[in-house]
Order: sequence, then structure tokens, then C-alpha cells
Amino acid sequence: MARAKNVLWVMCDQLRYDYLGCTGHPTLKTPNIDAMARRGVLFTKAYVQSPICGPSRMSFYTGRYMRSHGSHWNGWPLRVGEPTLGDHLKKIGVRNVLVGKTHMAPDLEGMKALGIPPESVIGVHVAECGFEPYERDDGLHPTGRPRPKYDDYLRSQGFEATNPWEHWANSGAADDGSLQNGWLLVHADKTARVPDEHSETPYMTRRAMDFISEAEIEGRPWCLHLSYIKPHWPYIAPEPYASMYSTSDMIPVIRADRERQNPHPVFGAYMDMRYSRNMARDDAREKVIPTYMGLITQIDDQMGVLMKFLEGRGLLDTTMIVFTSDHGDYLGDHWMGEKDLFHEQSAKIPLIIIDPVKEADATRGTRSDALVEAIDLAPTFVDYFGGKVPGHILEGRSLLPLLRGPTPPDWRKVAFSEYDYAMQDVRLKLNQPIERCRLFMVFDGRWKYIHASGFRPMLYDLESDPEEFFDRGDDPECAAIIARLQAELFDWALHPNDHITTPREKIANYADNQLQVKGGILIGIWDEKELAAIKDGIAQRAKM
Amino acid sequence: MARAKNVLWVMCDQLRYDYLGCTGHPTLKTPNIDAMARRGVLFTKAYVQSPICGPSRMSFYTGRYMRSHGSHWNGWPLRVGEPTLGDHLKKIGVRNVLVGKTHMAPDLEGMKALGIPPESVIGVHVAECGFEPYERDDGLHPTGRPRPKYDDYLRSQGFEATNPWEHWANSGAADDGSLQNGWLLVHADKTARVPDEHSETPYMTRRAMDFISEAEIEGRPWCLHLSYIKPHWPYIAPEPYASMYSTSDMIPVIRADRERQNPHPVFGAYMDMRYSRNMARDDAREKVIPTYMGLITQIDDQMGVLMKFLEGRGLLDTTMIVFTSDHGDYLGDHWMGEKDLFHEQSAKIPLIIIDPVKEADATRGTRSDALVEAIDLAPTFVDYFGGKVPGHILEGRSLLPLLRGPTPPDWRKVAFSEYDYAMQDVRLKLNQPIERCRLFMVFDGRWKYIHASGFRPMLYDLESDPEEFFDRGDDPECAAIIARLQAELFDWALHPNDHITTPREKIANYADNQLQVKGGILIGIWDEKELAAIKDGIAQRAKM
Repeated sequence: MARAKNVLWVMCDQLRYDYLGCTGHPTLKTPNIDAMARRGVLFTKAYVQSPICGPSRMSFYTGRYMRSHGSHWNGWPLRVGEPTLGDHLKKIGVRNVLVGKTHMAPDLEGMKALGIPPESVIGVHVAECGFEPYERDDGLHPTGRPRPKYDDYLRSQGFEATNPWEHWANSGAADDGSLQNGWLLVHADKTARVPDEHSETPYMTRRAMDFISEAEIEGRPWCLHLSYIKPHWPYIAPEPYASMYSTSDMIPVIRADRERQNPHPVFGAYMDMRYSRNMARDDAREKVIPTYMGLITQIDDQMGVLMKFLEGRGLLDTTMIVFTSDHGDYLGDHWMGEKDLFHEQSAKIPLIIIDPVKEADATRGTRSDALVEAIDLAPTFVDYFGGKVPGHILEGRSLLPLLRGPTPPDWRKVAFSEYDYAMQDVRLKLNQPIERCRLFMVFDGRWKYIHASGFRPMLYDLESDPEEFFDRGDDPECAAIIARLQAELFDWALHPNDHITTPREKIANYADNQLQVKGGILIGIWDEKELAAIKDGIAQRAKM
Repeated sequence: MARAKNVLWVMCDQLRYDYLGCTGHPTLKTPNIDAMARRGVLFTKAYVQSPICGPSRMSFYTGRYMRSHGSHWNGWPLRVGEPTLGDHLKKIGVRNVLVGKTHMAPDLEGMKALGIPPESVIGVHVAECGFEPYERDDGLHPTGRPRPKYDDYLRSQGFEATNPWEHWANSGAADDGSLQNGWLLVHADKTARVPDEHSETPYMTRRAMDFISEAEIEGRPWCLHLSYIKPHWPYIAPEPYASMYSTSDMIPVIRADRERQNPHPVFGAYMDMRYSRNMARDDAREKVIPTYMGLITQIDDQMGVLMKFLEGRGLLDTTMIVFTSDHGDYLGDHWMGEKDLFHEQSAKIPLIIIDPVKEADATRGTRSDALVEAIDLAPTFVDYFGGKVPGHILEGRSLLPLLRGPTPPDWRKVAFSEYDYAMQDVRLKLNQPIERCRLFMVFDGRWKYIHASGFRPMLYDLESDPEEFFDRGDDPECAAIIARLQAELFDWALHPNDHITTPREKIANYADNQLQVKGGILIGIWDEKELAAIKDGIAQRAKM
């Protein structure tokens, strides 16, 4: 009997596209991830559906745009009944398992209205966004919130505190060993107060290997989502990563003075956010970026551990391996911190997929510049496991054809991303109504158009201006380009996959086969003679 | 103690706007409905959100546009978890009760995935679209489908048959008494084979009165949806209604030869549907329309019975009464049968609301030409019962202000309606992909713009062309009007109420109050000094 197929889906948090060796970083060491790229396809134009954790992940986990799943912000519950990857995999007998972060908030009110106890099997499935939570850990654990298992682990290793996650793993040590608040940028250059082996990234890797070992006994195929917390802030790394990189390893900042002169109001408001003002400072960049790089190399080392583990168990031949991120990090580029807007630093993600089958040998080590969306992963996985992709629910497209041959000629011509800033101070600064804090990106591979409700659009030409310094949203010369991309957005907005209860096959059969007449509902038929002719026609067709 | 408030919400099926005395029909007798209009407000520009039963009703019952509830066609299940009027009323202790038709199809697959037994209390609530089904009867009962209670009633009155609904109530009698198939237009002038008292309209009225009597004992406030099947086809009326009107009572047909010359492809395909070709014939109109009129006067007589009943029980002072319809009927106008497109005969509905409170006295007997949508009823009812309208879920607006004073200055400037013809032969004729069979109406009170995916738009000027004979969708002179209404549609499409789990109040509080810092998540703060200043600012504001 052939071994079961599996998917190992690794996600980093806040890892931007250009911070890997294989995507062009000149000094960052990621040999293991680079090796993965050589065994698979590296996608150079993969975009998230919203450049912030919660909504981006809900798009990954549902295979649907934000406007369809409705969870616009961290902590906005995903509505009960919204179908997830886990629902689709469950139908074909595949376990969908989580180790790490999802940022899922359960729709407790919706569950209550439907009488679903949150602690029941179905309740957990719903509350965990369709995952079987082998280890759920969202990676941010301020004091006073529910505690992760990782706290217990740290305690078992002797790291005692009310909040071991914060006190040990995510605080820095001053030269005299005293605790430095790891949330603060000024301490990003301090070393974490735990050694590497007890920090979050190796811990989660071990938990993934625990699962894989146990799953082998169980025998069913699995999709394991290993979802690391890092290099997301708190920017604190253990040794040797804390001192692995210095400011001389940093790539130059990507920003221009002209960006601050008469900027688009939304861009202007973001540049004025506290985290942007701080990250635009060179001293903040110099504190943060070497540590950000160290945290990435730590992940890379763990990829080495993980690949060796899979190889040792003979799982490389049957396991599709995906390496990606949920969005980027401006790191001071464009005078911005965090993510929020759609510059390449924020909306573009690394994406490497290793498809183990023979048909994929031709693409190994290649790069694909096809426009890819985060929502493509869910249909890719369903497709890989041999399931039928529910095209009336999923809004992405399976990447299998691109992994096994040239990009299909009818591949998408534009990629979309969305953002809702209702929960941010930017809304107050711009005095926008709550319902109208919406941004939409349409990118055709060259032109990046951003519709901002209530404001003029933004527009960047990545061919002549790859660094996105020139906003041409009010340039009359670009009117035709803006009109074209706006028409794409209009068409996209009018055609969501909203009828999730009714598959296309059912629709196709209906009009084709005069099912109404067969069912006895006779609409607007004149007389017995006409009715007999219609029934005769149906009978004739049935014989054909 | 004050008596509980109630809502009696009467809906007819396929009753078009201009087929009432109070809306201008010169020969049709509807004295009771006209009297209701004198006691309330008659809305002259009320539009359904889709001119066909299922999706129109799902919009009435959810207070949301079709693109939001996702049920585009008769029989497409409303997804589990889609909030209904019944859910909102339940929260404020109001019973939401059904007598008659809803056209709801339960999402059995979604219920199964969530472990909801369809026969449980919650299962029935979900399956019945948030209604307590005192008597569910969708009005179309071909042989071989589940049988309505009405069948048993007919049998108890001596009308025996395998299918008494069809065999007696909806079949005609020839002069020799022999049965004539009531589905066929050629028999629309025959008399139903049951007397008036045993036909569907009086039966449903009695069932409504049964409920009201029982509810008085129970004591809780109620919203009763009395949802008649008629004047929807089968066009068969009992005496005296069958012979009440003759062809001389018919208003002239509304159509022009120019409509058939080079029509918009979608309009052309609909004119070519069998039911349109048949209803465009004068002999069909002469068979159908007098009976359609008789069925309306039968409903009017039942309104008289019902109002007398409410008056006798002293319920008129506490009960909001609504009279409306789910869409119209072309009846051969514009060379069309059925509904399907957005001409006034199809998308516009009669809407009368009697608000019993004193504050509404000033508007009694008046007409409102404000643009009203079917989705306005759900928030109106929540508002009437004193509930807080969940504005992040409901997409309509409460009509209470319009019932109690002048139209608010910020009232909507355009009304929307949608249609999906994927289930119809029109899709095959036009060779459109299943996902792109979409029509969208935007009406500003004068100009009616129709976006047809894949085709040029249609446009009618109801000021210079109230009969909608001149499609100006390709008239270069109208380019600016088309651009304006298209921009309205674009804006509408980009801003659905999709985040149903997160109320606006929660959003408002968040950005305003720096909740993240309070929660211990410190994003992009430079150092201890800056953190202290932020915390100090929060503390200062809390004191204010």
C-alpha cells in the first residue's frame, strides 16, 4: 500500500519577501530554506489578502478573500459556518492539524445561537478555524491573558515567573543580567533570557515533530500547519542569533524624502503612527533589523532540523512542503513600521512549495513569477490530496498546474488584497466613518493600484519605479491605467463567491435539463399541446 | 400594564405595485387595502432586492442584500449562521411566527457539519429562516413533493384526491365540470374547483387568526408573517372572484414595438423565454389578467376580515400592520411574463405600513416617495419593538422616522436590486459562465441603471419615459449619468456588511481608547519613557 500523502505547511509571522538568501538578501544566512527553494518552486509574486495577521490568516485558512470571510481584523471572530480548509480536508479523510499560531477568534455568540458548545468536538473545530489544535499558541502573551502550554514548558525548565513567556523568552538581558522590557524597540539588541533550545522557534519545531511521530502510528494523511511566531515582535532573539548580525549586515533603507512631501492622506496618516515614527529612526532600525535577521536564521536552522527529521522517517517522498509567511514588515522602509499598506515590503510574501511527485521534477529549483494569492494554498492542498476543489466556495486557484508545468494561459491577470483600518487611530486622524475605512489593492504584475474609500487612489509603476517612491494616483497621464485597474476591482467586487451552499454542478444541471417541468412546476405554459411537446422534448433528450 | 406590541406583516406573492385601487388601478376593487393606506403610509417607491421569490424573501427575512445572504435563487439554501429577523427579535423576547410561504431551503449540509439536528428547536429555527412555523406552506405543491397541511384540510372538507391542492384548489372546472389543468394559462379563466371559503387565501387568513387567538393566551409580543400564496400562479380563482372581472376591466398593455428592435441581449433573451412569448399574446393576457385581478380582490376581502378581527380584539392600537409583496408580475407588459428584470412591473412593490402610535398620526393617509428597499422592514420591526438595530448586520434602514415625520435628509439616494440568471435557460442562450449571470439595478428615483456582467448596461429615464420603453444604455449623451450610477454600484459593492460578528460599537471603542496598550500588547514603542507617557495619557483621559 502506498504511504499516505501529507502536507507540511510552515508559516512564519511577519517575514517579508526579501529577507531570505534565495530571495536576494546579500548577508542573511538561510541555507536550509535556500535548499528547499532548490527542491521546489519559489514564487516571486505571492501576495497576502490583507497585510495583517488575523485577516491574512483567515484568508489562508478559508481560501477566501477578506470581503468573503468577513474577519477584517485581529480578534474579529470568523463567523460560524464559514467553511475552512479543515472542513474541506475532513470530507476527504485528511487531518488538518495546528502547531503554533492562527490568530483565530471564535464566534462565541454565533455558536451560542446555534447551540454549539465551544468545548465539544465540533465546537473546537469551529473555534479553532477548522484545525485540530495539537498546540495552539498565538505568540503574544501579555500578563493577564490565557496562558500557553509554552509557559509550563519554560517552568519545567526552571524559568519561573508569573509570565515566563514575557519574563524569560521575550525579555532582554542587560549586560548586568537585569531584565529589559522586550516589547520596547530600544531593547531589541539585547539577548533573550532563555537559551536557543528553550526559545519559541525550536520548541514549536519539536512540537511539530512530536505530532508527526504520533501521526505515523495513527496512519491517516495529515496537513500540519507549523505556524511560527517569529520573526514577529517582540524582537528578541537568544544567542547565537542575538549577536549573529550587526548593522553592517543591514541592506540600505528603502525610502525617499519625496514620499513625505504631500503624501496620500492614508499613507500620510500611517507614516504618522507611533510605530512608523519610531521605525523610521535609524537608531530603531539598527536595534531591530539585526535581531530580525537573527530570528530568521534561527528559523532556518530549525528548517534544517525538520527536513532531516522528515528525511529520516522517509516522509520527503510523500509530503508536500510549503514555506511562507502571513505578511511582511516595513522595518522603517517608506518611513513605516509594521505592515498595513501594500508596498512590496508588506503585502508580498516568500512562498516556496516542494511538490514531491515525479511530475513536479521539471520545475524543481525554478522561480515562478505568476501572480499568486495566499488563498491559492487551500485549493492547492485539496487538489494535492486528490479532493475536488469546491470552486463555489474557494476563491483561490490550485497551484498544482504551476508546480508541474508552465503557468496555464488563463491564469489570473491581477491579484487583490484588502485592508480595513477601522480599528486604528488612522481612522480618527482621517475622520473616516467606521464602515468606510477600506483599502483595496489591485496589482497586475507591473501597476499597483490602491483604491482608498473616500480618497483618491494610489498608483505605483513597479517597472519604472520598483522601489515604489512615485505615487501616480493623481497623475492625469495614468488615467487609463487607473480606469483599467478600477474596472478589475469593480468586477471583482460584484462577483464574490457568496453562494456557498450551492455548487456550480447543481446550477449547471438545472438550466440544462428543464428540471422544473420534470418536478411538476409548469411556468407560463399555454396549453396541453405545448406541455406535451415540452415533455416529449425532455424524453427525447434523455434518450440521446 | 401596557399591552404587548405586535407586528402583523402581510405579504402577497407576485402582486405588482399598480394592481390596487390606492396605487391607481381604475377598475380593480380593493376597498379594504385602500382603507389601510388611509390609516398608514403608502410607499410609492419601494423595491425588492431581487425580483424573484426566494432571493427577494431571503432579503426581507435577513434585512440584507442578496450578495450578503448568498441565496440567489429559489431553493438555494440560506447558509447556516446567516442572521435572520427571527434571531434579532428572539434577543428582545419577540416571537417571529410564520403562516404561509417563505420559500426557505435549509442548509442541511451546513447544519450537518455543525452537528445541528434539523428537527431540534434550533434546527427548525435555522431551517425555517428564523420563523416559528405555525403553518408553513410555500403554495406550490406538485404531486410527488411533501404535502402541506392544507391538503388535509381540503380532505376534511370532502375534497379527496392524491393531490387535493392541485386537483381541487388549483385546477379549473370546464363548463361540464371536468378538470382543467390549472398550471396552463389557457385555463386561467376557469373557476377553481373549491368554493371561496376553502381556497388558499381565506384558509391562511383563518390560520393567522388562530395564531393570534392562541398568542393572546401566551402573552408574549409577536411578529406574525402572514404570507399569502396568491395572486401568484397557478392563476385560478374561486367564485365570485373567477368571474368578477372581464377583459373590459383590463388596463392597456404597456409595451412598444421598439422594445423588440435590437434589444439589450439579456432583455432579448428574456422576451424569448416561453413564458414571455406566451404572456405577450393578447389571448393569454385576456385569460390571466381578469383572474389575477379576482385573486387580488379576494385578498382584499380577507384584509377586511382580518382588520375586523383585530379591531374586535382591541389589537389595532398595539399592532403595526404591513401590507406588501415579494415582487411583481409583467403580465405581458414589455413583452414579458413572470418577473426577472427590473421594470416597475417587476421590481417595484406595494408597501403600506400602519404604525399605531400617536407620533405617527401626522403621516396617516399620506404617500412617501422616499426610496425604500425590502431590507428596510427587518430594521423597522426591531426598531418598533424597541430593540437596538444591529447596523453591522442589517443593510436596510428603519422606516420609523418616515412613519413619524419627514424623510431624514440623509436618506438613501439610490436603491439597489440584484438578479442571478444562472439557473435559467437565458444563461445557455447567452452562453454566459455560471458565475457571471449577474444583473444589478441602481435607481435614483429618476434614472434606472442596470449593470449586466459581460454586456453593456441598460438605462431608463423614468421622468421622460415613465413606461421604460427607451433603453439609453448605449446613448453617448447619457455617459455621465451612467458613470455616476456605476460609481454608486462600485461603492455599494465594495462596502457590504460582511463582518457580522463585530459590532460597530466594539470598533469605535477600540481605536478611541488605546485598548492595545491597556491589554499589554505594545507595538513599536521606543523605550520606557515613551511607554510611561502613553500610559499616563490613557490615565488622564480616563479621568476626564
